[in-house]
Amino acid sequence: MHDGDGGDVPVSVTEPLGEPGDDGAAERSGPTEKCGIVGVSLADRGAARPLYYSLYALQHRGQDSAGIVTHDGFQQHSHVGMGLVGDAFDGTTLGDLNGTTGIGHVRYATAGGVNERCAQPFSVSFKSGALGLAHNGNLVNADEIRDELASAGHAFTTNGDTEVIAHDLAGNLLDADLIRAVKRTMDRLHGSYSLTVMHDDTVLGVRDPLGNRPLCIGELDDGYVLASESAAIDTLDGRLVRDVEPGELVVLEPDGSGYDTYQLFEADHSAHCFFEHVYFARPDSVIDDTLVYEARRSLGRKLWEESGIDTDAVMPVPDSGRAFASGYADAAAEDGADVEFAEGLMKNRYVGRTFIMPTQDERERAVRLKLNPIKSTVEGKTVTLIDDSIVRGTTSTQLVDLLRDAGAEEVHVRIGAPAIVAPCFMGIDMATREELIAADRSVEEVREVIGADSLSYISTDAVADALSESRADLCFGCVTGEYPYDIDGETSDRDVERPPVERSGAHADD
Amino acid sequence: MHDGDGGDVPVSVTEPLGEPGDDGAAERSGPTEKCGIVGVSLADRGAARPLYYSLYALQHRGQDSAGIVTHDGFQQHSHVGMGLVGDAFDGTTLGDLNGTTGIGHVRYATAGGVNERCAQPFSVSFKSGALGLAHNGNLVNADEIRDELASAGHAFTTNGDTEVIAHDLAGNLLDADLIRAVKRTMDRLHGSYSLTVMHDDTVLGVRDPLGNRPLCIGELDDGYVLASESAAIDTLDGRLVRDVEPGELVVLEPDGSGYDTYQLFEADHSAHCFFEHVYFARPDSVIDDTLVYEARRSLGRKLWEESGIDTDAVMPVPDSGRAFASGYADAAAEDGADVEFAEGLMKNRYVGRTFIMPTQDERERAVRLKLNPIKSTVEGKTVTLIDDSIVRGTTSTQLVDLLRDAGAEEVHVRIGAPAIVAPCFMGIDMATREELIAADRSVEEVREVIGADSLSYISTDAVADALSESRADLCFGCVTGEYPYDIDGETSDRDVERPPVERSGAHADD
Amino acid sequence: MHDGDGGDVPVSVTEPLGEPGDDGAAERSGPTEKCGIVGVSLADRGAARPLYYSLYALQHRGQDSAGIVTHDGFQQHSHVGMGLVGDAFDGTTLGDLNGTTGIGHVRYATAGGVNERCAQPFSVSFKSGALGLAHNGNLVNADEIRDELASAGHAFTTNGDTEVIAHDLAGNLLDADLIRAVKRTMDRLHGSYSLTVMHDDTVLGVRDPLGNRPLCIGELDDGYVLASESAAIDTLDGRLVRDVEPGELVVLEPDGSGYDTYQLFEADHSAHCFFEHVYFARPDSVIDDTLVYEARRSLGRKLWEESGIDTDAVMPVPDSGRAFASGYADAAAEDGADVEFAEGLMKNRYVGRTFIMPTQDERERAVRLKLNPIKSTVEGKTVTLIDDSIVRGTTSTQLVDLLRDAGAEEVHVRIGAPAIVAPCFMGIDMATREELIAADRSVEEVREVIGADSLSYISTDAVADALSESRADLCFGCVTGEYPYDIDGETSDRDVERPPVERSGAHADD
Amino acid sequence: MHDGDGGDVPVSVTEPLGEPGDDGAAERSGPTEKCGIVGVSLADRGAARPLYYSLYALQHRGQDSAGIVTHDGFQQHSHVGMGLVGDAFDGTTLGDLNGTTGIGHVRYATAGGVNERCAQPFSVSFKSGALGLAHNGNLVNADEIRDELASAGHAFTTNGDTEVIAHDLAGNLLDADLIRAVKRTMDRLHGSYSLTVMHDDTVLGVRDPLGNRPLCIGELDDGYVLASESAAIDTLDGRLVRDVEPGELVVLEPDGSGYDTYQLFEADHSAHCFFEHVYFARPDSVIDDTLVYEARRSLGRKLWEESGIDTDAVMPVPDSGRAFASGYADAAAEDGADVEFAEGLMKNRYVGRTFIMPTQDERERAVRLKLNPIKSTVEGKTVTLIDDSIVRGTTSTQLVDLLRDAGAEEVHVRIGAPAIVAPCFMGIDMATREELIAADRSVEEVREVIGADSLSYISTDAVADALSESRADLCFGCVTGEYPYDIDGETSDRDVERPPVERSGAHADD
Repeated sequence: MHDGDGGDVPVSVTEPLGEPGDDGAAERSGPTEKCGIVGVSLADRGAARPLYYSLYALQHRGQDSAGIVTHDGFQQHSHVGMGLVGDAFDGTTLGDLNGTTGIGHVRYATAGGVNERCAQPFSVSFKSGALGLAHNGNLVNADEIRDELASAGHAFTTNGDTEVIAHDLAGNLLDADLIRAVKRTMDRLHGSYSLTVMHDDTVLGVRDPLGNRPLCIGELDDGYVLASESAAIDTLDGRLVRDVEPGELVVLEPDGSGYDTYQLFEADHSAHCFFEHVYFARPDSVIDDTLVYEARRSLGRKLWEESGIDTDAVMPVPDSGRAFASGYADAAAEDGADVEFAEGLMKNRYVGRTFIMPTQDERERAVRLKLNPIKSTVEGKTVTLIDDSIVRGTTSTQLVDLLRDAGAEEVHVRIGAPAIVAPCFMGIDMATREELIAADRSVEEVREVIGADSLSYISTDAVADALSESRADLCFGCVTGEYPYDIDGETSDRDVERPPVERSGAHADD
Repeated sequence: MHDGDGGDVPVSVTEPLGEPGDDGAAERSGPTEKCGIVGVSLADRGAARPLYYSLYALQHRGQDSAGIVTHDGFQQHSHVGMGLVGDAFDGTTLGDLNGTTGIGHVRYATAGGVNERCAQPFSVSFKSGALGLAHNGNLVNADEIRDELASAGHAFTTNGDTEVIAHDLAGNLLDADLIRAVKRTMDRLHGSYSLTVMHDDTVLGVRDPLGNRPLCIGELDDGYVLASESAAIDTLDGRLVRDVEPGELVVLEPDGSGYDTYQLFEADHSAHCFFEHVYFARPDSVIDDTLVYEARRSLGRKLWEESGIDTDAVMPVPDSGRAFASGYADAAAEDGADVEFAEGLMKNRYVGRTFIMPTQDERERAVRLKLNPIKSTVEGKTVTLIDDSIVRGTTSTQLVDLLRDAGAEEVHVRIGAPAIVAPCFMGIDMATREELIAADRSVEEVREVIGADSLSYISTDAVADALSESRADLCFGCVTGEYPYDIDGETSDRDVERPPVERSGAHADD
Repeated sequence: MHDGDGGDVPVSVTEPLGEPGDDGAAERSGPTEKCGIVGVSLADRGAARPLYYSLYALQHRGQDSAGIVTHDGFQQHSHVGMGLVGDAFDGTTLGDLNGTTGIGHVRYATAGGVNERCAQPFSVSFKSGALGLAHNGNLVNADEIRDELASAGHAFTTNGDTEVIAHDLAGNLLDADLIRAVKRTMDRLHGSYSLTVMHDDTVLGVRDPLGNRPLCIGELDDGYVLASESAAIDTLDGRLVRDVEPGELVVLEPDGSGYDTYQLFEADHSAHCFFEHVYFARPDSVIDDTLVYEARRSLGRKLWEESGIDTDAVMPVPDSGRAFASGYADAAAEDGADVEFAEGLMKNRYVGRTFIMPTQDERERAVRLKLNPIKSTVEGKTVTLIDDSIVRGTTSTQLVDLLRDAGAEEVHVRIGAPAIVAPCFMGIDMATREELIAADRSVEEVREVIGADSLSYISTDAVADALSESRADLCFGCVTGEYPYDIDGETSDRDVERPPVERSGAHADD
Repeated sequence: MHDGDGGDVPVSVTEPLGEPGDDGAAERSGPTEKCGIVGVSLADRGAARPLYYSLYALQHRGQDSAGIVTHDGFQQHSHVGMGLVGDAFDGTTLGDLNGTTGIGHVRYATAGGVNERCAQPFSVSFKSGALGLAHNGNLVNADEIRDELASAGHAFTTNGDTEVIAHDLAGNLLDADLIRAVKRTMDRLHGSYSLTVMHDDTVLGVRDPLGNRPLCIGELDDGYVLASESAAIDTLDGRLVRDVEPGELVVLEPDGSGYDTYQLFEADHSAHCFFEHVYFARPDSVIDDTLVYEARRSLGRKLWEESGIDTDAVMPVPDSGRAFASGYADAAAEDGADVEFAEGLMKNRYVGRTFIMPTQDERERAVRLKLNPIKSTVEGKTVTLIDDSIVRGTTSTQLVDLLRDAGAEEVHVRIGAPAIVAPCFMGIDMATREELIAADRSVEEVREVIGADSLSYISTDAVADALSESRADLCFGCVTGEYPYDIDGETSDRDVERPPVERSGAHADD
C-alpha cells in the first residue's frame, strides 16, 4: 500500500548529505528524489493551466513541492510552492505565469530537506537567455561535475543534481546550438535522468541512455506534451504518441506545431525501472508500451502460476494490491480453484497528517483506524493476502495480525514484486539497507517475522514477462543489489564505465 | 461516488432557514444534518482518546466539525472544533478532556452554517447538573417545541434541534429521574433521532421509536460504547453487542461495568433508512443486523437478476460502485454470462479542496483529473457501469461521456438504489427537489439525460430483500415521496399522528 | 506600560473557576473580563462598518475576540471571531451583517478561556424576539441569579455573567415592556456593568447605579452611538454628547432620529474606576467629563507637587508614562527646577507574539530588545523615571537596572497611580494578590525590590483632584482593598447591601 | 511618520524591472531595497540566537523577509523566511543554525517581488568553500557586471545585485586571498553598499568608498559584531566600537578574539545618507558618530531658528515628529516664546494589515482610526505641526484637515528634512518622481496642496550642521536630484567616473 496514509511509504535515505564541494567519498550525496515532470508547447493557449492540471495528474510522484516555469516569448515566469499542487498555486500565481510554453515539476523531499530553494523546476538566466530544468532521477557523478564546474568559477546555491545540470548546459550553450549543447551535457551525465528543459520558449525532453526513468510524448489538438506518465496526457484530453526512447532528445516547436527528435545515444540494453509498474506509477498510465494496470493484473496471474494456493478467499491490500489480486483470482478461477475474491479490509480515507499518535498500548487501534477487517469475510476462513511489495514489513506484519484477530484460520501472503534487498540509487527514496526487511533475511525468515503461514514473492523472470521486456532491459537494482550504473561501493550488472553509445542521425517528425 | 471529491455529494436544503420563533410555515426549517455520534463509559481509562479514535472511524458521517464532551466526576469538559477530527483537536485540547465517560459528534453543516456555536455535542449546565447532547437525525416538530419552551421563558442561542432537546430534557430533569425525564422528552419529540446524551457522568443512548437513524452497542474489555456504526467499535478493538432497538433507551454504568436498557416505545413497524446501507455507511459496519458490504454485494446480485445485461465488461464507479459491481459480476458469472469485471476508471485521490476551477471550456478536463478511463479496458467494448445511486445526475452524465470518448461501443448504467425522487426530511441533506434528476423524469428520460444506452435502478422490494427486512420496516421517503412521519406538505405512508407506542417494562442487562 | 509587548499587562485571576451551579463559596467565579462595548443606530446606513471601525478604536480594551450583532428589521445577524478586530472579520462576514442598528464587543479572555462560545455579544432568541448583549464589568451575584434561573428550568451554555443577564432579561420581557424589563433585571444585578443591548432592532445602553465602568453617548450626522470611550465616537466622525449617568438607561430610536433616557436608579455616590484614567483608557477619550490625556498630565503635575525631586533628567517609560512625565516636567520647570524632559528609553515596536524566548542567561537581552536606553541621555546623570503604575514590579525592576547599566548615577521612580495592593473584582483582570508587588510590602520595601534610589506613588486625594471628582465618587478597590460592592471575604467601603436607589421619572431627549 | 500603518511609507520604484541580461537602457533595473545587515563572531557561543536578536533590533529596516547563515567550521547552515523575524524563524529552524559565526539580513521587498529566492543572505558554494552575503544598498552597474560574468558562463537564479556580487567574489577567490579578492570585487562595484560576508567561518564587513549606507563595529564580552545600526549591538549587551569607515574592510577573527581592518579605498569626500538620521534609523542608534535622537532634537532646534513661529501649541506627528518637536519647543522656550508642547494627535497602535478598507466616503474615518485629534488641545488654537519629512504629502494633507476639523485656528507645518524632489537610487525605495509632492512644486505650492497656513522645510546646511558633517560629505540626492554616483539620465554632484581611491596599508586591531 502506498497512499498518503503513513503506510510503507518509501522514505528518504538517511545518510548525512555530503557537503557541496566534498571530494570523492559521498558519491551518492545529495537529495535522491522521486519526481514527476512535464513540458507543454501550445499554439496560442496559455501553458500554465494545462501544466497545473497535468501536475495534478502526477501528484502521486511528489507531494512536497510543485513548480511551473513558463516563457512568454520575452521573458521567463516561474513559481514554486511547498506542498501539494493545490496548495502551491493559487489563482494569482497561476495567472502570472504567462506564455504558451512551459515545464512543471512535483517533488518528494528528502528528510529535513523541504526547502523552497531546492524546489524545482530550477531556473537560471545566463548570457544566452533563460533556462528552466525539471529533473526526475539521480546522477551518479553529480559531485564530480560540480567540482569541475566549481574549478571554472561556478558558484552553486543548492546541493542538488539539477543545478549541476543547469550550469553545465548553460555553459555549453555559450558556444554550441541547443542540440549539441544537450549532447555535450549528456556526455558528462552518468546516472538516471528524465528531464524537461526550457531554453527561452523552447521546451525539450530527454531520457538517459538506459531509459531508467519514464518519459512520454503526447499530442493535443493545439500542441504537444512531454510527461513522466501518460495519465497526465489523458488529463489534458490528449493522445499518447509514444515513449521517449532511451538516449533520445525531443524538441517541441514553440508554436505547438510539432516536434523534432534526435537519437543522441544508443545502448545495447535499456534499464527500465520495473518498480514504476509494480508500485509507483498510476494504473491508468502506459509506460514503455505497457499499461500499468494490465501489467499488475498480469503479475497477479503469474503469481498464481508460480505460487498459487487454494484458500477460501483472495484478499487485496487496498488499494495497492487490488489489480494483482484480481489477476490472481481470475487465473485461479480458470484453473478451477474455488477461491473467492473478497474485500476483507476496509480503508478509512480520512486518516490524515494531523492525527494524534496513539500511546504505545493503543498501537493496535491505530492500524484499525486505517484498515478494518470485515469479520464475516474473514472469520473461520483461509485467506491469501495480496500486496504489491514488502519494503520494511511493518504493514504486512500488522495486516497478518489483524486478519488472525478477525478469525482467519490461515493467512498466506503473495507479493507482486520480488523481494527488495537493496536501496535504489536511481531516483527512488526506498529505505536504507538496514530498514529493508528482506535485506538480510531469507524468504522463510521474512515469513516468520510477518507471521504468515506462507509467503511467496514473484520471480524477476515473471516480472520481465509481464512487462514484455527482456530481463536485461530492466533495472532490478533493488532486488539484486546489482545496478546498471557503476556506483561507488556497489556492484554493477553491466559493463558500464560509460554506456556504449553512438550518435545516430537526427530526424524530425510532424 | 461520495468521496470528498466534489462529486454527487448530497448537499444542504437551500430553502432559507426559518427565523427562530417563526410560526407554522417553515415546519422543516433549521439545519437538516447528517451526523455521527458516539458515547463511551470506561472503568478507569480516560474517555477522550477512545472517543477521538471512534470519531475518526465515523469521519465519513460529518466533516465540518467535531466535538467531545467528557465528565470527570466533578465537572464537564468540552471541546468542539471546525473541520476534520484531526484538525478539530490537538494534543492539548484532547489532554484537557478529563474523565472516563463522554460523548462525541461529527457533523456536516448546511450551506452557510459552518459555525462553532452550532457544532455539537451541545452542552448546558442547569439546576440538576450538566447535560451534553449529540444528535443524528431531524425533528419534524422542533419549532413547535421551541415555541412552547420559549413561552415558558427559555432563550435559545442556536436555531438547531439539539438545543431544543437539551432544554426540554433539562426541564424534565428538574422533577423526574433520568429515565422518566428521557421518556417525557421522547413523548414530545416527533421525527428521526439517535442521541447520545451525558447527564453528569452518565452516558445514555436512545433511538427514535421508528429506528430511522442507526445506533449500536459495543463492548470493550474495560467498558461499553454507543456508536452510529459498528466500525467505530472495531476501531476501539471492541465487540458489537447489537443494535439499539427503535424506541429503546440504553444507560451505560459510569464505571464501565455494564448497561441497563428500557424499551420506552414500541411501534408496529420500523422505518430504518435504506440509504445508510446503499450509500452512507461504511462497508465494514453492521447496521440493523446486516453487514453493509454484504448488503451491497447482495444488491449487486439482485441488480443482475432484475436487469442484468450481457456486456463485455462490468465496471464500477470507484469507489462507490465497487461492492455492487462485484456482486453483479459474480451473479452474472454464475448465470454463465461472459462478463469481465474490469476497473476501467482510475481515481486521482489527490484532487482536493484547493483546486483552481477550470474555465468553462476546460470542464471536461476537470472530470478527467478525478477519473481517468483506461482505454484498453474500454475501447471497442460494451460496458455496464455500476454505481450506488444517482442524485443530481451530473457525475453519471460525465462518466458515460468519458467512457464513450474512450471508445466504449455501448454504455449501460445499473444503479444499486431505486430512483431518488424526493428530499430526505429525516436527517440526510440530499438535495432540493429541483436538483434531483429523477424528481420529475421517468427512467427513460433520465437515461436520455445521462446519455446511457440503457438504465435500470433496483426495485424497493429487492432492497428490502437484500437488507432482510420487511418493506414496511424501511423508510423509502426519498424514493416514494411518502414519509414515515407526517411532514407539512408531504404525504405520509403510515398512520401516524404519533407513532402507536406503548411502554414496555424496563429490564436491565449485565 | 501596557502595549502588547509582554510587559506588565494585567492578566487573569488564576483561581480555578467555580463550576457553574456551584453554591456559595466561589462567589467571584467565572471570567472577570475587561471589555469594550458599542451600539449604533442609523437612519439608513448599514451599522456593520461603523461598528467595525468603532471596535477598532476600542481594540486596546480587548484583543482576544471581537463580535458584532445587527438587526435588519426582520432578523438578527451575528458574527464573533477570535483575535483582533481585523482578524475576527473579513469582507464577507462583515458584509453579511445587515441592518441599520447593532452592537459590538471586544474582549480579553481569562487564562485558558479563549473560546468562541464565551465570545460576545451574546445572542439568544426567545418568545418575544431576539436579544443581543455586550457586557463590560463584573457581577458580584451572577451565581446567585444563575441558581434562581436554573431552579426555574433555565439551562446555560456558558459560565459567564452575560448569559445570566440575557436569560433574566428575556424572562422579564415576556410580561413587561422593555423599560420595565430592564429595570427589573437591574434590580437583581449587583456589581459593575455597562451594557449595550439589542432587542430586535432597538439598541439600548445602561450603566450600573454606581457608574463603575464607563459608557457615553455620541451623535452622528445620521444617528446615535453608545460606546465605552468617546474615541470610538471620534472615529465615526461624531460628537460626544455626554456620559451615560450611573443608573441611567438610554434607548436609541431604531431610525437613528434620537434617543430616550430613563434614570432608573440613583445612588448617593458614584464609584467611577480611577484606573481607567490612569492606565486603561485611550488618552484621547473623555470619560466622566475628563479628558484622559489631561488627567494624566494633571496627575504628573501633582506628582511633582507631592514628591518632586530635582534630577538631571525626567524620563517617561514609553509610551505609558509619557503624559505623566510631561506634566511633571512642566510643573518642575514652573517651579524653576532645572530638569530636562528626555526620552531615554527607545521602544522596539516589532517585538511581537512569536518571539522565541531567550534562554535564562539571555534574559537581560530580552528587555533590551523591547526597550533600549540611550546612553548619552542617561550616562552620568541623575534620572527620574515616570510610569503610570506598578503592578507586579517586573518591568520597573528591569528598567531601573537598564538605566543603571547605561550609567545613570541615581534612578528615582515616580508613579502616577497609588500603590496597587488588591485585585479588582469590578471587571479588570489585574493580577492575583500574590502577584501584586505592593500587596504586602511597604513603599520602602517595594523601592528596595525594584532597586530605585527613591520611590513615590501619587496619593488618592491627588487622583480625585486630577479627575475633578470627590474621593467618595471613585472606586479605589485595588488601592485600598475596600470595594464599593460587598464581595464575599472582602471589605466594602460603602453602606451597600443594595445601593440606595430610587426611581426618577423617565424623560426623553430630542 | 513611518510605522507600518499604511502612512507615507516609501514604496518601491514602479518602473518595470529590466530583464536579467538586458543591455544598457535599464541601468538601475533590479530591486532597489532598503535592508538591515549584521554579522557576528563569537568565542564559543552559538551565533544563531545573537543574530536573531540583533535582526529583531533592525526589524524597522526590513519586514518582508529575514535570513541567517551560520558556519560551524565544517559546513554552512542557512535559513531564510518570509515576513517579520518572529515569523521567519521558529525554535527548530533557529536551533539548526549551528556554529559560532554567522551573518543575518532583514529586507523590504519591491512590489510584486516578495519571493524566497530573492531573500537574503544569499548563499553559494563554490570551489574554495561556501559564501554568504548580506547586502544593504544599490549598485549602479550591476547589469554591466552581470553581463560580463554571463559572458564567462555564469548562470543566475535571481535578478538581484547580491547574486552578482557573490559570483564576482567567488570568482576572485579562486586565485586570490580573501583581502585581495574583496578588493578586486570592490574595484568593480559602483554604487552604494554595506555588506556582511561569510567565507566559510570568517565574517567580514565592508562599506562602499563613499560610505553611503551605515555599518558599525561592536564588541561583546565574547566576540565582535558588525551591524547596520548600533542599536543591534546594544541588544546584545555589547559596546559600540566605531563606524566602519567608507572603503574599509573589517575581518572578524573566527574565534571572536578580535578583528583586522584594511582601508581598501579612500575618497576625498563621503556621501553619508542624511535620510538615515532624519527618517529611517532608530533614535537610539549612533550613526557616523552622531546619536540619531540627538540629531533629530538638534534639527528641531534649527527648525525653530530658521523658521520658528509663535503659535499656541507645538504638536508632533506621532511618533515620527516627536524628537524634532521636542527640540523645536525647547529652542522656542529658550527664546522666550510662549509655545506649549502638546500631544494633540493620538495614535491607534492596533491598526494592522488586515484592516478592511473603508468605502470612498468613509476615507476620512480611516485617517481617524489611525490618528485622532484631542480636541481640547487643538480647539481655538494656533498650532505648529512638526514631522520628519513629506514624501507624497497624503498624510500631511489629512492631518492638517483633521486639525482644522478639530477647531484649530491656524495650522503651520514645519519639516525636519529638506523637500524631497527626486528618487533615491542608493538603496531607499522612496517613491517615483511622479509621486513626490515636491518634485515639481514650489514650497508655496506644496503648502497650498496640503492646506497649511505656512510651511517650512529645514535647509541642507542646517542638516549638515546637525549631523556635524561637511555638506560635501553627505548624500542629498533626493533633495537636489544630484547624486554622488553617476546614474544614467541623472546628474552627478561629484567628479566620479569611479571614486578617486587609493589603497592604504592594512593594519590589524586587537
